[in-house]
Amino acid sequence: MPQFRVVTDPDDPAVAPFRAIKERDLVGREGLFIAEGETVLRAFVRDAPERVVSLLIDPKRRDKLADIFEGLPDETPVHFADQAVVDAIAGFHLHRGVLAVGRKPSPIAARDLLAGLPERAIVLVLCGIANHDNMGGVYRNAAAFGVDAVLLDADCCDPLYRKAIRVSVGAALSVPTARLARGEDIAALLAAAGFEGLALSPAASEILARVKPSPRAAVLLGAEGPGLAPDLMARARAVGIPMAKGFDSLNVATTSGIVLHHLRFAEA
Amino acid sequence: MPQFRVVTDPDDPAVAPFRAIKERDLVGREGLFIAEGETVLRAFVRDAPERVVSLLIDPKRRDKLADIFEGLPDETPVHFADQAVVDAIAGFHLHRGVLAVGRKPSPIAARDLLAGLPERAIVLVLCGIANHDNMGGVYRNAAAFGVDAVLLDADCCDPLYRKAIRVSVGAALSVPTARLARGEDIAALLAAAGFEGLALSPAASEILARVKPSPRAAVLLGAEGPGLAPDLMARARAVGIPMAKGFDSLNVATTSGIVLHHLRFAEA
Repeated sequence: MPQFRVVTDPDDPAVAPFRAIKERDLVGREGLFIAEGETVLRAFVRDAPERVVSLLIDPKRRDKLADIFEGLPDETPVHFADQAVVDAIAGFHLHRGVLAVGRKPSPIAARDLLAGLPERAIVLVLCGIANHDNMGGVYRNAAAFGVDAVLLDADCCDPLYRKAIRVSVGAALSVPTARLARGEDIAALLAAAGFEGLALSPAASEILARVKPSPRAAVLLGAEGPGLAPDLMARARAVGIPMAKGFDSLNVATTSGIVLHHLRFAEA
Repeated sequence: MPQFRVVTDPDDPAVAPFRAIKERDLVGREGLFIAEGETVLRAFVRDAPERVVSLLIDPKRRDKLADIFEGLPDETPVHFADQAVVDAIAGFHLHRGVLAVGRKPSPIAARDLLAGLPERAIVLVLCGIANHDNMGGVYRNAAAFGVDAVLLDADCCDPLYRKAIRVSVGAALSVPTARLARGEDIAALLAAAGFEGLALSPAASEILARVKPSPRAAVLLGAEGPGLAPDLMARARAVGIPMAKGFDSLNVATTSGIVLHHLRFAEA
């Protein structure tokens, strides 16, 4: 059973990791992260219960969350505090009233992550995705379409930032992820692991809808505007999504959904 | 040529429509709307110059916007005001420094809008989409994939709300749109105009990737959570997007992109 406690003092040391949430979103949490909301918490406890550090919950929600508590490892601290106390701890009004502190997974090298994937696999390679909404949206699609791994270049934001986790509906907590070092040769890494790189680009002549997926496919997505680096484009198969005149780009999360749907369900 | 003026007094009556923007976002503008940012303004002037009422611009951006001014009807008022004056008029800091007031198009009945479409056409029917980010994202995809019209049920939010316009990258200003009356029979309306309704639903047994599009297709999208009304579902062809275990829904804007891409590019 988890270890239930009632917290009435916002300065209680037991809830220190939940303190001043917005300020610490900015500076980071040294290996920890905050997840919020019932749907996200449910996904977290289902997918990675061993990484739940502690919970902070409005007691009014206790009954609704009973099944979640059953999924927690023994002795996991669950703090109950009235909404006003939760708000005082967090430093702002949290209308969801459900918070978790989690431990980030140990970093894994991209090479090792790729080496451990099955013979048929899809990975996403994200380059320069700096917006947390987009990052969360991409992870949501990655989980929905069963992506095997996500590789992030050095310019991507953290998918375990609070808002990215929320937008991902918890998927950022479970999709295996590796961060590339700055300057690491992505094309060489993919080639060594037998992945065909598909570089999404508005200028490509080959259209996505006609692509027959390879057994191991790596979808390369850049930020709207700058797109993918030319040297990476040059060493991948360029694929485009034709658009109406005057519109030359889609949102990157939407693009990920379209590409993953095609790769999963196109007739091979 | 547009009519250029310099505004130094935030209380100048000529800029009254730009005053207290956030407060008036909430109460509405009686047939007018606010559009912001260079990309949106460019799309607006390109697609509907006759509906531009007036502009308010930081003079530092004048040179960059020269091509936009050329597209404006004669005598369109263009007000130049320094960033501090723009902020004082708007009531908050507008880091984009480019604002337009536009006139909404005259309402058109859904029946008339459908009757005027070509023999091959795709329309989107949105039911209960109340989130402005999602609304903007759906319009962005609608424009990118050349959707012929959008029908909104009575529970949808306004696509000409400032944030929805921004997220749509201006597409909300140009895609032909009709608002349905509460209780209007959507299925009958579509049938009368020869449109096959495709109802997106996680529970459908037919999968999207195998759907051969009809010449006239209507894509029905409901809000995440409630989805589409059962009586509407019952009179449409239910289509699903299979997802990984534990994930039963996609974001509605992403869904629209996936469906439109399939309908546009699937082998007929």
